Amino acid sequence: MSSPDPPYELIYWPDIPGRGEPIRLLFEEAGVPYIDHSQEPKQAVQDVLGFIAADNVGDGTNPPILAPPILRHGKLIIHQLPNILLYLAPKLGLAPKEGDDIFHLNQIVLTLLDGFVNELHDTHHPTAVSMYYEDQKPEAKKRSKAFIEERIPKFLGYVQRLLDAKTSNDEVPWLYGDKLTYADLVAFQCIDGTSYAFPKSMKKLKESGKYDGVFKLYEAVKERPNISAYLASERRFAYSDGIWRHYPELEEDVNL
Amino acid sequence: MSSPDPPYELIYWPDIPGRGEPIRLLFEEAGVPYIDHSQEPKQAVQDVLGFIAADNVGDGTNPPILAPPILRHGKLIIHQLPNILLYLAPKLGLAPKEGDDIFHLNQIVLTLLDGFVNELHDTHHPTAVSMYYEDQKPEAKKRSKAFIEERIPKFLGYVQRLLDAKTSNDEVPWLYGDKLTYADLVAFQCIDGTSYAFPKSMKKLKESGKYDGVFKLYEAVKERPNISAYLASERRFAYSDGIWRHYPELEEDVNL
Repeated sequence: MSSPDPPYELIYWPDIPGRGEPIRLLFEEAGVPYIDHSQEPKQAVQDVLGFIAADNVGDGTNPPILAPPILRHGKLIIHQLPNILLYLAPKLGLAPKEGDDIFHLNQIVLTLLDGFVNELHDTHHPTAVSMYYEDQKPEAKKRSKAFIEERIPKFLGYVQRLLDAKTSNDEVPWLYGDKLTYADLVAFQCIDGTSYAFPKSMKKLKESGKYDGVFKLYEAVKERPNISAYLASERRFAYSDGIWRHYPELEEDVNL
Repeated sequence: MSSPDPPYELIYWPDIPGRGEPIRLLFEEAGVPYIDHSQEPKQAVQDVLGFIAADNVGDGTNPPILAPPILRHGKLIIHQLPNILLYLAPKLGLAPKEGDDIFHLNQIVLTLLDGFVNELHDTHHPTAVSMYYEDQKPEAKKRSKAFIEERIPKFLGYVQRLLDAKTSNDEVPWLYGDKLTYADLVAFQCIDGTSYAFPKSMKKLKESGKYDGVFKLYEAVKERPNISAYLASERRFAYSDGIWRHYPELEEDVNL
Protein backbone atom coordinates (compact mmCIF):
# COMPACT_ATOMS: atom_id res chain seq x y z
CA MET A 1 0.00 0.00 0.00
CA SER A 2 1.38 3.39 -0.87
CA SER A 3 1.42 5.79 2.02
CA PRO A 4 1.81 9.41 0.93
CA ASP A 5 2.85 12.01 3.46
CA PRO A 6 -0.33 12.78 5.41
CA PRO A 7 -1.69 16.32 5.18
CA TYR A 8 -0.71 18.99 7.68
CA GLU A 9 -3.64 20.43 9.61
CA LEU A 10 -3.55 23.63 11.63
CA ILE A 11 -6.26 23.82 14.28
CA TYR A 12 -6.64 27.33 15.62
CA TRP A 13 -9.15 30.07 16.40
CA PRO A 14 -10.64 31.78 13.34
CA ASP A 15 -10.51 35.48 12.42
CA ILE A 16 -7.15 36.49 13.90
CA PRO A 17 -3.54 35.99 12.86
CA GLY A 18 -2.60 35.18 16.47
CA ARG A 19 -0.31 32.35 17.41
CA GLY A 20 -1.42 30.50 14.29
CA GLU A 21 0.29 33.01 12.03
CA PRO A 22 3.94 31.98 12.28
CA ILE A 23 2.82 28.43 11.43
CA ARG A 24 0.93 29.64 8.36
CA LEU A 25 4.00 31.58 7.22
CA LEU A 26 6.12 28.42 7.28
CA PHE A 27 3.69 26.54 5.04
CA GLU A 28 3.24 29.51 2.73
CA GLU A 29 6.96 30.17 2.28
CA ALA A 30 7.62 26.47 1.70
CA GLY A 31 4.73 26.21 -0.72
CA VAL A 32 3.50 23.12 1.10
CA PRO A 33 -0.28 22.57 1.17
CA TYR A 34 -1.95 22.63 4.60
CA ILE A 35 -5.46 22.51 5.90
CA ASP A 36 -6.19 25.61 7.94
CA HIS A 37 -9.22 24.93 10.14
CA SER A 38 -9.42 28.66 10.90
CA GLN A 39 -10.87 29.14 7.43
CA GLU A 40 -14.08 27.40 8.59
CA PRO A 41 -14.92 29.57 11.61
CA LYS A 42 -17.72 27.55 13.23
CA GLN A 43 -15.93 24.24 12.83
CA ALA A 44 -12.64 25.77 13.99
CA VAL A 45 -14.12 27.01 17.25
CA GLN A 46 -15.74 23.62 17.86
CA ASP A 47 -12.51 21.77 17.11
CA VAL A 48 -10.43 23.97 19.38
CA LEU A 49 -12.94 23.78 22.22
CA GLY A 50 -13.04 20.00 21.85
CA PHE A 51 -9.28 19.68 22.12
CA ILE A 52 -8.89 21.93 25.13
CA ALA A 53 -11.97 20.69 27.05
CA ALA A 54 -11.18 19.86 30.69
CA ASP A 55 -12.51 16.34 30.21
CA ASN A 56 -10.49 15.66 27.06
CA VAL A 57 -7.62 13.47 28.23
CA GLY A 58 -6.17 12.80 24.80
CA ASP A 59 -6.51 9.76 22.59
CA GLY A 60 -4.17 7.32 24.31
CA THR A 61 -1.23 8.32 22.11
CA ASN A 62 -1.29 12.08 22.05
CA PRO A 63 -1.39 13.84 25.42
CA PRO A 64 -4.14 16.36 26.21
CA ILE A 65 -3.78 19.93 25.05
CA LEU A 66 -4.00 23.14 27.05
CA ALA A 67 -4.35 25.67 24.27
CA PRO A 68 -4.15 26.14 20.51
CA PRO A 69 -2.44 26.37 18.05
CA ILE A 70 -2.57 22.63 17.45
CA LEU A 71 -0.93 20.71 14.62
CA ARG A 72 -2.15 17.36 13.34
CA HIS A 73 0.15 15.43 11.03
CA GLY A 74 -0.92 11.85 10.46
CA LYS A 75 -1.34 10.29 13.88
CA LEU A 76 0.69 12.92 15.64
CA ILE A 77 -1.06 15.80 17.41
CA ILE A 78 1.06 18.47 19.06
CA HIS A 79 0.59 21.95 20.47
CA GLN A 80 2.67 24.93 21.71
CA LEU A 81 3.72 27.35 18.98
CA PRO A 82 7.54 27.04 19.31
CA ASN A 83 7.14 23.25 19.45
CA ILE A 84 5.07 23.12 16.28
CA LEU A 85 7.58 25.34 14.49
CA LEU A 86 10.43 23.11 15.67
CA TYR A 87 8.63 20.07 14.31
CA LEU A 88 7.79 21.65 10.97
CA ALA A 89 10.85 23.70 10.05
CA PRO A 90 13.26 20.85 9.17
CA LYS A 91 10.49 19.03 7.28
CA LEU A 92 9.65 22.14 5.25
CA GLY A 93 13.25 22.98 4.38
CA LEU A 94 13.33 25.94 6.76
CA ALA A 95 15.92 24.57 9.18
CA PRO A 96 18.72 22.01 8.92
CA LYS A 97 17.61 18.42 9.42
CA GLU A 98 20.74 17.42 11.34
CA GLY A 99 23.27 18.86 13.74
CA ASP A 100 23.05 21.44 16.48
CA ASP A 101 21.96 24.47 14.41
CA ILE A 102 18.37 23.72 15.35
CA PHE A 103 19.15 24.62 18.97
CA HIS A 104 20.41 28.02 17.88
CA LEU A 105 17.33 28.53 15.76
CA ASN A 106 15.01 27.33 18.50
CA GLN A 107 16.57 29.75 21.02
CA ILE A 108 16.15 32.64 18.60
CA VAL A 109 12.52 31.76 17.98
CA LEU A 110 11.77 31.31 21.69
CA THR A 111 13.30 34.69 22.42
CA LEU A 112 11.35 36.43 19.64
CA LEU A 113 8.11 34.88 20.86
CA ASP A 114 8.87 35.80 24.47
CA GLY A 115 9.20 39.43 23.57
CA PHE A 116 6.93 40.19 20.65
CA VAL A 117 4.14 37.72 21.43
CA ASN A 118 3.99 36.79 25.12
CA GLU A 119 5.16 40.03 26.70
CA LEU A 120 3.34 42.09 24.10
CA HIS A 121 0.09 40.25 24.81
CA ASP A 122 0.28 41.36 28.43
CA THR A 123 0.43 45.03 27.46
CA HIS A 124 -3.34 44.90 26.95
CA HIS A 125 -3.95 42.18 29.53
CA PRO A 126 -1.53 42.91 32.37
CA THR A 127 -3.86 41.77 35.16
CA ALA A 128 -5.88 38.82 33.89
CA VAL A 129 -6.64 37.16 30.57
CA SER A 130 -10.16 36.57 31.85
CA MET A 131 -10.93 40.29 32.28
CA TYR A 132 -11.91 42.74 29.56
CA TYR A 133 -9.26 45.17 28.41
CA GLU A 134 -11.53 48.03 29.50
CA ASP A 135 -11.33 46.78 33.08
CA GLN A 136 -7.54 46.79 33.22
CA LYS A 137 -6.82 49.94 31.26
CA PRO A 138 -4.78 51.88 33.86
CA GLU A 139 -2.56 48.83 34.38
CA ALA A 140 -2.34 48.35 30.62
CA LYS A 141 -1.12 51.91 30.13
CA LYS A 142 1.63 51.46 32.69
CA ARG A 143 2.72 48.13 31.31
CA SER A 144 2.66 49.37 27.73
CA LYS A 145 4.81 52.36 28.58
CA ALA A 146 7.45 50.12 30.14
CA PHE A 147 7.15 47.57 27.34
CA ILE A 148 7.58 50.12 24.58
CA GLU A 149 10.33 52.12 26.26
CA GLU A 150 12.37 49.23 27.62
CA ARG A 151 11.38 45.87 26.21
CA ILE A 152 10.84 46.59 22.51
CA PRO A 153 14.28 48.25 22.24
CA LYS A 154 15.78 45.36 24.17
CA PHE A 155 14.32 42.75 21.83
CA LEU A 156 14.98 44.78 18.67
CA GLY A 157 18.54 45.24 19.93
CA TYR A 158 18.82 41.49 20.34
CA VAL A 159 17.69 40.87 16.77
CA GLN A 160 20.13 43.51 15.51
CA ARG A 161 22.91 41.78 17.49
CA LEU A 162 22.07 38.52 15.74
CA LEU A 163 22.54 40.29 12.43
CA ASP A 164 25.70 42.12 13.53
CA ALA A 165 27.16 38.77 14.56
CA LYS A 166 27.17 37.63 10.95
CA THR A 167 30.32 39.50 9.98
CA SER A 168 31.08 37.13 7.13
CA ASN A 169 28.39 38.19 4.71
CA ASP A 170 26.69 41.55 5.02
CA GLU A 171 24.65 41.01 1.89
CA VAL A 172 22.56 38.24 3.43
CA PRO A 173 19.62 39.70 5.34
CA TRP A 174 18.81 36.52 7.30
CA LEU A 175 19.18 35.95 11.03
CA TYR A 176 21.14 32.73 10.99
CA GLY A 177 23.52 31.45 8.36
CA ASP A 178 23.27 32.19 4.65
CA LYS A 179 19.78 30.84 4.00
CA LEU A 180 16.36 31.99 5.04
CA THR A 181 15.15 29.94 8.03
CA TYR A 182 11.95 29.78 9.98
CA ALA A 183 13.45 32.23 12.47
CA ASP A 184 13.26 34.90 9.76
CA LEU A 185 9.57 34.19 9.21
CA VAL A 186 8.89 34.41 12.93
CA ALA A 187 10.84 37.68 13.11
CA PHE A 188 8.78 39.07 10.23
CA GLN A 189 5.50 38.30 12.00
CA CYS A 190 6.81 39.74 15.27
CA ILE A 191 7.80 43.04 13.66
CA ASP A 192 4.62 43.17 11.60
CA GLY A 193 2.33 42.55 14.59
CA THR A 194 4.22 44.94 16.84
CA SER A 195 4.09 47.65 14.16
CA TYR A 196 0.34 47.18 13.97
CA ALA A 197 -0.06 47.42 17.74
CA PHE A 198 2.28 50.35 18.32
CA PRO A 199 2.70 52.15 14.97
CA LYS A 200 3.95 55.51 16.32
CA SER A 201 6.54 53.88 18.52
CA MET A 202 7.77 51.45 15.91
CA LYS A 203 8.10 54.29 13.41
CA LYS A 204 10.30 56.19 15.86
CA LEU A 205 12.38 53.13 16.58
CA LYS A 206 12.83 52.50 12.89
CA GLU A 207 13.85 56.12 12.29
CA SER A 208 16.42 55.93 15.08
CA GLY A 209 18.62 53.98 12.65
CA LYS A 210 19.66 51.59 15.40
CA TYR A 211 17.86 48.61 13.96
CA ASP A 212 18.38 48.98 10.23
CA GLY A 213 19.21 45.32 9.80
CA VAL A 214 15.99 44.30 11.53
CA PHE A 215 13.80 46.34 9.23
CA LYS A 216 15.80 45.22 6.21
CA LEU A 217 15.14 41.62 7.24
CA TYR A 218 11.47 42.45 7.64
CA GLU A 219 11.28 43.84 4.11
CA ALA A 220 13.26 40.92 2.67
CA VAL A 221 10.75 38.43 4.08
CA LYS A 222 7.83 40.53 2.92
CA GLU A 223 9.18 40.45 -0.63
CA ARG A 224 9.56 36.69 -0.84
CA PRO A 225 7.27 35.69 -3.71
CA ASN A 226 5.22 33.17 -1.72
CA ILE A 227 4.93 35.41 1.32
CA SER A 228 4.01 38.44 -0.72
CA ALA A 229 1.28 36.44 -2.52
CA TYR A 230 0.02 35.12 0.79
CA LEU A 231 -0.14 38.56 2.40
CA ALA A 232 -2.21 39.79 -0.52
CA SER A 233 -4.56 36.80 -0.35
CA GLU A 234 -7.75 36.29 1.63
CA ARG A 235 -6.00 33.59 3.64
CA ARG A 236 -4.17 36.26 5.64
CA PHE A 237 -6.43 37.40 8.47
CA ALA A 238 -6.53 41.08 9.36
CA TYR A 239 -5.40 42.10 12.83
CA SER A 240 -8.27 42.61 15.25
CA ASP A 241 -8.67 41.62 18.89
CA GLY A 242 -6.03 38.92 19.11
CA ILE A 243 -2.51 39.26 20.45
CA TRP A 244 -1.58 42.29 18.37
CA ARG A 245 -4.21 44.96 19.05
CA HIS A 246 -4.12 48.63 18.30
CA TYR A 247 -5.23 50.77 21.24
CA PRO A 248 -3.84 54.24 20.46
CA GLU A 249 -4.01 55.26 24.14
CA LEU A 250 -1.39 52.66 25.03
CA GLU A 251 1.38 54.54 23.27
CA GLU A 252 0.22 58.04 24.24
CA ASP A 253 2.52 58.58 27.22
CA VAL A 254 5.56 56.92 25.76
CA ASN A 255 8.93 58.70 25.59
CA LEU A 256 11.18 57.27 22.95
CA MET B 1 43.65 11.48 19.93
CA SER B 2 40.97 10.46 22.37
CA SER B 3 38.20 13.00 22.74
CA PRO B 4 36.11 12.49 25.87
CA ASP B 5 32.70 14.10 26.09
CA PRO B 6 33.39 17.71 27.02
CA PRO B 7 32.04 18.91 30.38
CA TYR B 8 28.63 20.52 30.70
CA GLU B 9 28.72 24.06 32.05
CA LEU B 10 25.72 25.96 33.39
CA ILE B 11 26.19 29.71 33.33
CA TYR B 12 23.58 31.46 35.45
CA TRP B 13 23.06 34.04 38.19
CA PRO B 14 24.19 32.96 41.65
CA ASP B 15 22.12 32.68 44.84
CA ILE B 16 18.71 31.75 43.42
CA PRO B 17 17.21 28.56 42.02
CA GLY B 18 15.60 30.54 39.19
CA ARG B 19 15.58 29.39 35.63
CA GLY B 20 18.80 27.51 36.28
CA GLU B 21 17.07 25.05 38.59
CA PRO B 22 15.32 22.72 36.12
CA ILE B 23 18.68 22.33 34.36
CA ARG B 24 20.41 21.41 37.63
CA LEU B 25 17.70 18.84 38.35
CA LEU B 26 18.37 17.08 35.05
CA PHE B 27 22.08 16.72 35.80
CA GLU B 28 21.44 15.69 39.38
CA GLU B 29 18.85 13.03 38.52
CA ALA B 30 21.07 11.66 35.76
CA GLY B 31 24.13 11.66 38.02
CA VAL B 32 26.09 13.43 35.31
CA PRO B 33 28.81 15.85 36.49
CA TYR B 34 28.36 19.49 35.53
CA ILE B 35 30.10 22.73 36.25
CA ASP B 36 27.69 25.17 37.85
CA HIS B 37 29.10 28.68 37.53
CA SER B 38 26.49 29.91 40.01
CA GLN B 39 28.58 28.32 42.78
CA GLU B 40 31.21 31.04 42.27
CA PRO B 41 29.04 34.13 42.69
CA LYS B 42 31.45 36.88 41.58
CA GLN B 43 32.62 34.98 38.55
CA ALA B 44 29.06 33.92 37.69
CA VAL B 45 27.81 37.50 37.59
CA GLN B 46 30.78 38.53 35.47
CA ASP B 47 30.25 35.61 33.07
CA VAL B 48 26.53 36.29 32.66
CA LEU B 49 27.04 40.02 32.14
CA GLY B 50 29.72 39.27 29.56
CA PHE B 51 27.44 37.00 27.57
CA ILE B 52 24.43 39.32 27.56
CA ALA B 53 26.36 42.57 26.97
CA ALA B 54 24.85 44.67 24.18
CA ASP B 55 28.20 44.70 22.35
CA ASN B 56 28.69 40.94 22.55
CA VAL B 57 27.82 39.65 19.12
CA GLY B 58 28.79 36.05 19.74
CA ASP B 59 31.91 34.19 18.71
CA GLY B 60 31.28 33.64 15.03
CA THR B 61 29.72 30.22 15.62
CA ASN B 62 27.31 30.73 18.48
CA PRO B 63 24.81 33.56 18.14
CA PRO B 64 24.58 36.28 20.80
CA ILE B 65 22.54 35.66 23.91
CA LEU B 66 19.75 37.75 25.40
CA ALA B 67 19.51 36.24 28.87
CA PRO B 68 20.68 33.36 31.04
CA PRO B 69 20.53 30.43 31.72
CA ILE B 70 23.28 29.56 29.27
CA LEU B 71 24.70 26.10 28.57
CA ARG B 72 28.18 25.48 27.23
CA HIS B 73 28.97 21.99 25.97
CA GLY B 74 32.20 21.76 24.05
CA LYS B 75 32.03 24.38 21.31
CA LEU B 76 28.28 24.76 21.52
CA ILE B 77 26.77 27.61 23.52
CA ILE B 78 22.98 27.83 23.79
CA HIS B 79 20.42 29.67 25.88
CA GLN B 80 16.65 29.66 26.60
CA LEU B 81 15.58 27.26 29.34
CA PRO B 82 13.23 24.99 27.32
CA ASN B 83 15.86 24.84 24.58
CA ILE B 84 18.63 23.81 26.96
CA LEU B 85 16.38 21.13 28.46
CA LEU B 86 15.51 19.86 24.98
CA TYR B 87 19.20 19.59 24.15
CA LEU B 88 20.13 17.83 27.38
CA ALA B 89 17.26 15.44 28.07
CA PRO B 90 17.97 12.84 25.36
CA LYS B 91 21.71 12.95 26.13
CA LEU B 92 21.09 12.42 29.85
CA GLY B 93 18.64 9.53 29.38
CA LEU B 94 15.65 11.67 30.36
CA ALA B 95 13.87 11.64 27.00
CA PRO B 96 13.87 9.27 24.01
CA LYS B 97 16.70 9.86 21.55
CA GLU B 98 14.51 9.14 18.51
CA GLY B 99 10.95 9.51 17.29
CA ASP B 100 8.27 12.08 17.92
CA ASP B 101 7.89 11.66 21.71
CA ILE B 102 10.25 14.56 22.20
CA PHE B 103 7.61 16.90 20.70
CA HIS B 104 5.08 15.74 23.28
CA LEU B 105 7.61 16.21 26.05
CA ASN B 106 8.67 19.60 24.75
CA GLN B 107 5.05 20.80 24.62
CA ILE B 108 4.47 19.67 28.20
CA VAL B 109 7.61 21.43 29.40
CA LEU B 110 6.79 24.62 27.50
CA THR B 111 3.32 24.65 29.03
CA LEU B 112 4.62 24.07 32.56
CA LEU B 113 7.15 26.87 32.16
CA ASP B 114 4.53 29.21 30.71
CA GLY B 115 2.35 28.81 33.78
CA PHE B 116 4.54 28.21 36.78
CA VAL B 117 7.57 30.24 35.72
CA ASN B 118 6.71 32.98 33.22
CA GLU B 119 3.19 33.85 34.36
CA LEU B 120 4.12 33.37 37.99
CA HIS B 121 7.05 35.75 37.63
CA ASP B 122 4.69 38.50 36.56
CA THR B 123 2.61 38.19 39.76
CA HIS B 124 5.30 40.22 41.53
CA HIS B 125 6.35 42.18 38.44
CA PRO B 126 3.14 42.85 36.51
CA THR B 127 4.16 46.29 35.24
CA ALA B 128 7.88 46.22 34.54
CA VAL B 129 10.87 44.00 35.29
CA SER B 130 12.92 47.15 35.70
CA MET B 131 10.81 48.48 38.60
CA TYR B 132 10.99 47.44 42.25
CA TYR B 133 8.24 45.18 43.51
CA GLU B 134 7.35 47.85 46.06
CA ASP B 135 6.52 50.26 43.24
CA GLN B 136 4.06 47.89 41.55
CA LYS B 137 2.40 46.40 44.62
CA PRO B 138 -1.25 47.28 43.86
CA GLU B 139 -0.91 45.81 40.38
CA ALA B 140 0.87 42.78 41.83
CA LYS B 141 -2.01 42.12 44.23
CA LYS B 142 -4.55 42.19 41.40
CA ARG B 143 -2.50 40.01 39.14
CA SER B 144 -1.72 37.53 41.91
CA LYS B 145 -5.38 37.18 42.80
CA ALA B 146 -6.27 36.33 39.21
CA PHE B 147 -3.24 34.09 38.84
CA ILE B 148 -3.97 32.08 41.97
CA GLU B 149 -7.73 31.83 41.45
CA GLU B 150 -7.73 31.13 37.72
CA ARG B 151 -4.34 30.27 36.33
CA ILE B 152 -2.88 27.94 38.97
CA PRO B 153 -6.02 25.72 38.89
CA LYS B 154 -5.90 25.80 35.11
CA PHE B 155 -2.31 24.65 34.95
CA LEU B 156 -2.68 22.13 37.79
CA GLY B 157 -5.75 20.80 35.98
CA TYR B 158 -3.69 20.43 32.84
CA VAL B 159 -1.05 18.41 34.65
CA GLN B 160 -3.75 16.24 36.22
CA ARG B 161 -5.23 15.70 32.75
CA LEU B 162 -1.84 14.49 31.52
CA LEU B 163 -1.87 11.93 34.32
CA ASP B 164 -5.52 10.97 33.79
CA ALA B 165 -4.73 10.32 30.14
CA LYS B 166 -2.45 7.48 31.11
CA THR B 167 -5.23 4.99 31.71
CA SER B 168 -2.97 2.02 31.00
CA ASN B 169 -0.92 2.08 34.16
CA ASP B 170 -2.13 3.88 37.28
CA GLU B 171 0.85 2.77 39.32
CA VAL B 172 3.29 4.88 37.34
CA PRO B 173 3.39 8.43 38.72
CA TRP B 174 5.13 9.98 35.70
CA LEU B 175 3.66 12.46 33.23
CA TYR B 176 4.52 10.74 29.97
CA GLY B 177 4.98 7.04 29.33
CA ASP B 178 6.24 4.53 31.89
CA LYS B 179 9.59 6.10 32.68
CA LEU B 180 10.56 9.27 34.47
CA THR B 181 11.37 12.00 31.95
CA TYR B 182 12.67 15.51 32.20
CA ALA B 183 9.07 16.75 32.14
CA ASP B 184 8.61 15.22 35.60
CA LEU B 185 11.64 17.08 36.92
CA VAL B 186 10.34 20.34 35.49
CA ALA B 187 6.92 19.66 37.03
CA PHE B 188 8.56 19.04 40.39
CA GLN B 189 10.37 22.37 40.31
CA CYS B 190 7.21 24.17 39.20
CA ILE B 191 5.14 22.78 42.07
CA ASP B 192 7.94 23.32 44.56
CA GLY B 193 8.51 26.93 43.57
CA THR B 194 4.82 27.76 43.42
CA SER B 195 4.28 26.19 46.85
CA TYR B 196 7.05 28.40 48.21
CA ALA B 197 5.53 31.53 46.64
CA PHE B 198 1.90 30.85 47.57
CA PRO B 199 1.91 28.32 50.44
CA LYS B 200 -1.60 28.95 51.74
CA SER B 201 -3.17 28.72 48.30
CA MET B 202 -1.25 25.64 47.24
CA LYS B 203 -2.21 23.92 50.53
CA LYS B 204 -5.89 24.58 49.77
CA LEU B 205 -5.54 23.38 46.21
CA LYS B 206 -3.82 20.23 47.42
CA GLU B 207 -6.56 19.61 49.99
CA SER B 208 -9.24 20.01 47.34
CA GLY B 209 -8.37 16.51 46.18
CA LYS B 210 -8.64 17.57 42.54
CA TYR B 211 -4.95 17.26 41.81
CA ASP B 212 -3.92 14.19 43.75
CA GLY B 213 -1.89 12.81 40.86
CA VAL B 214 0.05 16.04 40.58
CA PHE B 215 1.09 16.02 44.22
CA LYS B 216 1.89 12.31 44.06
CA LEU B 217 4.16 13.02 41.12
CA TYR B 218 5.77 15.81 43.11
CA GLU B 219 6.52 13.47 46.02
CA ALA B 220 7.75 10.73 43.70
CA VAL B 221 10.34 13.06 42.18
CA LYS B 222 11.34 14.37 45.61
CA GLU B 223 12.06 10.81 46.77
CA ARG B 224 14.32 9.91 43.87
CA PRO B 225 17.66 9.10 45.55
CA ASN B 226 19.73 11.56 43.53
CA ILE B 227 17.15 14.33 43.79
CA SER B 228 16.66 13.83 47.50
CA ALA B 229 20.45 13.96 48.07
CA TYR B 230 20.67 17.08 45.94
CA LEU B 231 17.85 18.87 47.77
CA ALA B 232 19.62 18.19 51.08
CA SER B 233 22.97 19.43 49.73
CA GLU B 234 24.47 22.89 49.72
CA ARG B 235 24.26 22.91 45.95
CA ARG B 236 20.51 23.60 46.15
CA PHE B 237 19.99 27.34 46.52
CA ALA B 238 17.30 28.58 48.91
CA TYR B 239 14.44 30.58 47.41
CA SER B 240 14.90 34.32 47.81
CA ASP B 241 14.27 37.16 45.41
CA GLY B 242 14.22 35.26 42.14
CA ILE B 243 11.21 34.03 40.22
CA TRP B 244 9.55 32.28 43.14
CA ARG B 245 9.19 34.88 45.91
CA HIS B 246 7.08 34.75 49.00
CA TYR B 247 5.14 37.96 49.61
CA PRO B 248 2.33 36.96 52.02
CA GLU B 249 0.22 39.97 50.99
CA LEU B 250 -0.12 38.58 47.48
CA GLU B 251 -2.34 35.72 48.60
CA GLU B 252 -4.29 37.67 51.24
CA ASP B 253 -7.37 38.49 49.16
CA VAL B 254 -7.59 35.21 47.35
CA ASN B 255 -10.79 33.15 47.30
CA LEU B 256 -10.15 29.52 46.60
